[in-house]
Amino acid sequence: MFIINKSCCSTSARVGELQTAHGTIKTPAFMPIGTYAAIKTLSTDEIKNLNYNLVLSNTYHLYLRPGTEILEKFNGLHNFMNWDGAILTDSGGYQIYSLSEFRKIDENGVEFRSHLDGSKHYFTPERIVEIQRSIGSDIMMVLDVCPPANASKEEHIKAVQTTTEWAKRCLSYLETKGPKYNFDQIISPIIQGGTSEKLRKMSAEQLIDLDAKMYAIGGLAVGEPKEDMLSVVNYLDGIMPKNKPRYLMGVGTPEDLINCISMGVDMFDCVIPTRNARNGQLFTSNGKINIRNAKFRADDSPIDSNNDNIISQNYTKAYLHHLFRTEEILGYRIATQHNLSFYNNLVTNAAKAIQKNNFLSWSKTFLNNYNN
Amino acid sequence: MFIINKSCCSTSARVGELQTAHGTIKTPAFMPIGTYAAIKTLSTDEIKNLNYNLVLSNTYHLYLRPGTEILEKFNGLHNFMNWDGAILTDSGGYQIYSLSEFRKIDENGVEFRSHLDGSKHYFTPERIVEIQRSIGSDIMMVLDVCPPANASKEEHIKAVQTTTEWAKRCLSYLETKGPKYNFDQIISPIIQGGTSEKLRKMSAEQLIDLDAKMYAIGGLAVGEPKEDMLSVVNYLDGIMPKNKPRYLMGVGTPEDLINCISMGVDMFDCVIPTRNARNGQLFTSNGKINIRNAKFRADDSPIDSNNDNIISQNYTKAYLHHLFRTEEILGYRIATQHNLSFYNNLVTNAAKAIQKNNFLSWSKTFLNNYNN
Repeated sequence: MFIINKSCCSTSARVGELQTAHGTIKTPAFMPIGTYAAIKTLSTDEIKNLNYNLVLSNTYHLYLRPGTEILEKFNGLHNFMNWDGAILTDSGGYQIYSLSEFRKIDENGVEFRSHLDGSKHYFTPERIVEIQRSIGSDIMMVLDVCPPANASKEEHIKAVQTTTEWAKRCLSYLETKGPKYNFDQIISPIIQGGTSEKLRKMSAEQLIDLDAKMYAIGGLAVGEPKEDMLSVVNYLDGIMPKNKPRYLMGVGTPEDLINCISMGVDMFDCVIPTRNARNGQLFTSNGKINIRNAKFRADDSPIDSNNDNIISQNYTKAYLHHLFRTEEILGYRIATQHNLSFYNNLVTNAAKAIQKNNFLSWSKTFLNNYNN
Repeated sequence: MFIINKSCCSTSARVGELQTAHGTIKTPAFMPIGTYAAIKTLSTDEIKNLNYNLVLSNTYHLYLRPGTEILEKFNGLHNFMNWDGAILTDSGGYQIYSLSEFRKIDENGVEFRSHLDGSKHYFTPERIVEIQRSIGSDIMMVLDVCPPANASKEEHIKAVQTTTEWAKRCLSYLETKGPKYNFDQIISPIIQGGTSEKLRKMSAEQLIDLDAKMYAIGGLAVGEPKEDMLSVVNYLDGIMPKNKPRYLMGVGTPEDLINCISMGVDMFDCVIPTRNARNGQLFTSNGKINIRNAKFRADDSPIDSNNDNIISQNYTKAYLHHLFRTEEILGYRIATQHNLSFYNNLVTNAAKAIQKNNFLSWSKTFLNNYNN
């Protein structure tokens, strides 16, 4: 199901292929985020043309809107949103922590109020799998407990313990029920433990015992210092199984991706390229720019002459500046497409460099230009 | 420059071709509105794929943003917005009336304050042509005086007189200066006169004397009763030259288009298909629907099975309902594309019916289904 085609000669980076029910995902891979069954501003055709074939959506949000009844009527999210690529769904643990003002965790699950209308809901590990069966996710995530960076040690210990118990129940439930539609669905546990090596080790080892098909690192990019994040990923590189895909949740910047690829991470998701695009921030080979800046008012150069995406070549900085100034939706679309092409180029070029045994020098050159 | 290929056997409807510097426009034609150098939510590729090759933009708005200096740097709006079809620009007379809280008309032009920052500006007829030369409009409109429907008779008389004087100055200025770039630019006078047949006749006759290449009907759809609008168009059908394109400004609904095509109108523009799309209103062969309505929540039928546009066929009502409910920009895009395809189908099918000598029965069937 996961094949490593090439390992880097000098880092833990690797190039692989993950088979899913909706196509083969080349790793390292970045997943664009389609929280509400749509990648913000874009159509699924555009996502395909940007060479993405795995997108992330969110169980918590889809459960609230459109709801599982609708998704089941369509035989799952793929048909509903007109997308024939693969889908990974985040379980909602993080959303329940970050969006809900009220949540109560007991051994059996978590009670929370919807951030939309305050209505009460209760998720058990089994219920979360059931919802993801209705969604038809190619890759499900277990229900986890995801404390903020500044949570107490006791909270982190409890989070690890509960996350392990719930992971067991999720895997066992999916094992019993099988997939809902006529294609495979796999499920990934999530390693918690904050920034403590001891807790991360405990969490990882307990979950590795479950012999899942892939593993995720959760509970990072939740407010901890960047060096702590990198330190945890580096530490886990020595513990997580080498022969299974590793997914680092919610990370990150272009620098983060390169650093974490070198530490053996295979999959990423992050709102940065899409959310920042809608604020006018563009990622280019020479670093970030904000297209709202007045200096671009008359700049007739392409958005990024080093990006061979047609969007980045065909539109000028002056026109995109104008679209942002007049708040035209087309501007948000162009910026989003450009940023997602930058991110896809980044992971694709990293893979090429690993294949050619020059990942370190490639990444050095990339970062020199980018931070110039 | 304008050829009538077929005239209806029983109404004043006709099928024609208008040559412009950026392609041949088949009439009757509907123009999507791109006020700020973009058709709201859509790319120019999408406009092209919807079979439009003439769009409307606005002199007043483009003058304020991005400004003529930028447009000149790009050798005009076509390059700036990446559009190789034709462009008609409204002159701004209507915008100065409707957006500016302050404006002062004298014999020489109009002083107004920007609706954006309150800054003072002064447009003369010559200046308006000069701005449209910088824009590189294929079809310019003269600076006119466009009073609201409830203006006094004196205001309407004055508006007609001033509009005629300014039209003369606009045409003469363009005649002297010629086009700015290496392609032809033509200019259309605008018939005013409110709902008075006497004033409309006076305005039309004075402007016809100028022997312009096309003529527009302005000052309608500004608050007058629908039957007055139709009555003015019908009246002018008997006065306006048959061998020149006739453009009815700011109109209208699908019914308006059919009625006015039957009275010899060749060109239309209106915000209805695009603006209403963003509010969830969709035009279908069976009438208007609002996709926000809860009854579409689980409706897995295509947006409009009678519209062969791929957008209308590929997306379901339930998914579009969901996108509106979650305020996803993709929803506004899909609705806009659908509505513009409906409008283009409408004028294209009207043309086919005229060609086949069955315009009246076609329009009766269309309206029966539409109003069902």
